Amino acid sequence: MTVTARAHTNIALIKYWGKRDQKLILPQTDSLSLTLKPFYTDTTVNFSPDYQQDHFSIDGREVSPKTYQRLTSFLNIVRQQAGISLAAHVDSINHVPTAAGLASSASAFAALALAASRAAGLNLSSKDLSRLARRGSGSATRSIYGGLVQWHRGHDDASSYAEPIMEKVDFGLEMIAILLDTHQKKISSRAGMQEVVATSPYYPAWRQVVASGIIAIKKAIAARDIDRIGHISQENALRMHALNLAADPGFTYFNADTLATIHLIDQLHDSGLSCYYTMDAGPNVKVIYDRRDRQKLLGELKKHFASDQLVVAEAGPGAAVLNENKNK
Amino acid sequence: MTVTARAHTNIALIKYWGKRDQKLILPQTDSLSLTLKPFYTDTTVNFSPDYQQDHFSIDGREVSPKTYQRLTSFLNIVRQQAGISLAAHVDSINHVPTAAGLASSASAFAALALAASRAAGLNLSSKDLSRLARRGSGSATRSIYGGLVQWHRGHDDASSYAEPIMEKVDFGLEMIAILLDTHQKKISSRAGMQEVVATSPYYPAWRQVVASGIIAIKKAIAARDIDRIGHISQENALRMHALNLAADPGFTYFNADTLATIHLIDQLHDSGLSCYYTMDAGPNVKVIYDRRDRQKLLGELKKHFASDQLVVAEAGPGAAVLNENKNK
Repeated sequence: MTVTARAHTNIALIKYWGKRDQKLILPQTDSLSLTLKPFYTDTTVNFSPDYQQDHFSIDGREVSPKTYQRLTSFLNIVRQQAGISLAAHVDSINHVPTAAGLASSASAFAALALAASRAAGLNLSSKDLSRLARRGSGSATRSIYGGLVQWHRGHDDASSYAEPIMEKVDFGLEMIAILLDTHQKKISSRAGMQEVVATSPYYPAWRQVVASGIIAIKKAIAARDIDRIGHISQENALRMHALNLAADPGFTYFNADTLATIHLIDQLHDSGLSCYYTMDAGPNVKVIYDRRDRQKLLGELKKHFASDQLVVAEAGPGAAVLNENKNK
Repeated sequence: MTVTARAHTNIALIKYWGKRDQKLILPQTDSLSLTLKPFYTDTTVNFSPDYQQDHFSIDGREVSPKTYQRLTSFLNIVRQQAGISLAAHVDSINHVPTAAGLASSASAFAALALAASRAAGLNLSSKDLSRLARRGSGSATRSIYGGLVQWHRGHDDASSYAEPIMEKVDFGLEMIAILLDTHQKKISSRAGMQEVVATSPYYPAWRQVVASGIIAIKKAIAARDIDRIGHISQENALRMHALNLAADPGFTYFNADTLATIHLIDQLHDSGLSCYYTMDAGPNVKVIYDRRDRQKLLGELKKHFASDQLVVAEAGPGAAVLNENKNK
């Protein structure tokens, strides 16, 4: 079978920042995200006895030896589950600015989990797909589902998976990604979070921050209270970035533009516009707001940014198969 | 008596950030600072039966009602200790860029404590002067002494005072203040630290950060290990600023220039120059380094900043009387 699947990336409103188990990618805490419509990866997988070894291309280019190793290890998990030993060809197209704080690995491994498992003859439940995607990249766990999604940290491989809180977002929650810097980031999220777990004196308190943040944001989601969702998300993002500053050595994903943008969003908020920000392992800022304020907010942002730096993102759908063809 | 005293401001290497007692200004933790030679306040105090009420001028200008209240309350403590009820005229000249992260209140209240107590006929020990200065502004507690100074948090008014660790710094520890923004800051340190104590989930861990930071930096001072002093100071500063990000609402004293400057110092450090940074309740960055690297460091910094933005600060002396005149 040749299978093509699409999965969307997601933005964590309550952040995943730290693993308990490096190999199984079991996280230290729960997390909660919004899947994003405009950012996705399309991946085609074909297992065949004709292939001598796995082959991977991303955006039409061969992958580095390090990425090859990571991807082939992931396929080994799929092969083991399916009881096959065939090599695969995998072609992936990313519609996500790479490695700039929008987790392209989330959409990439969610799409790969779906396409590879189907191509290998498996028909996994969403829960098991989520567990499989987790083995590739933590944030991919959540990208199996659309809308608002919670990843339960669990205590082992079987209990650490995502579940939708609201798959079809039926209120105006929306995001604008402000693309400040699409260059490769210097500290990967993988390296950053592990340094933080090991050296930040605030990490134990972070676990409690997330536990109460999850409760608070689920309440705000149930009430469709965007103002509250935004406030909780912004607070959680800043508390995550505070962990990095406090690590040894301290570090930050913010650059000068990040800070100027944060101050701008603060000003817009203080002037009466209901808008909040969140940032991940990169300098980009994502603004959270109510869809009905979109034009007003875009108008303000266009005073400071070029149009192609501003990408409006509605809630997106879960991972889906685009195409299945029996091999000849 | 008319008395003129001079006191220098100081830069905290282990920060004071949070009070336990607002009225007595008892801090949550110890702190440790370097008194700075180029930044100081000269203050002249004269108590006289000719005066109807207190009068204050700073840099030749009358003070605001709020500042008047703060200064007259401070003089009341002095009058109470001296057993007098005379009004005073106080003239103060600041040689510190006001309210931009260099604590002008430290030099101001240390100079005022010395000049006012002498003018009122008191002859306080350095320890009692330090306790008195504390009532005006926490960081002033340390400015009574020169060089490297520790403020013991203590448990009451009598036990919360500063002591010199090394009054004459006999090694090359030096600082360059990079003046990025001399405008009035938006969040006072007083307001900032109290919000943090009340709302930052990382505050309990901060107490432990300071306790171990004090022990580590005193060891590094005893070894005259500037590299280690710089590393500990930078780490402590970032952990203090992390508390602010994590408050509710989160805030930061950094602006875009702060972050660009931090990244520059990081680069210089990584290229082999032994330099570290610290920041207080404002956007300015202060670089800590060894005097023998001064020219090399200035050469690098002048590629990015104007000469008048760069102020080299050696260790400065303790508070001293400049002039005493009997009233006619």
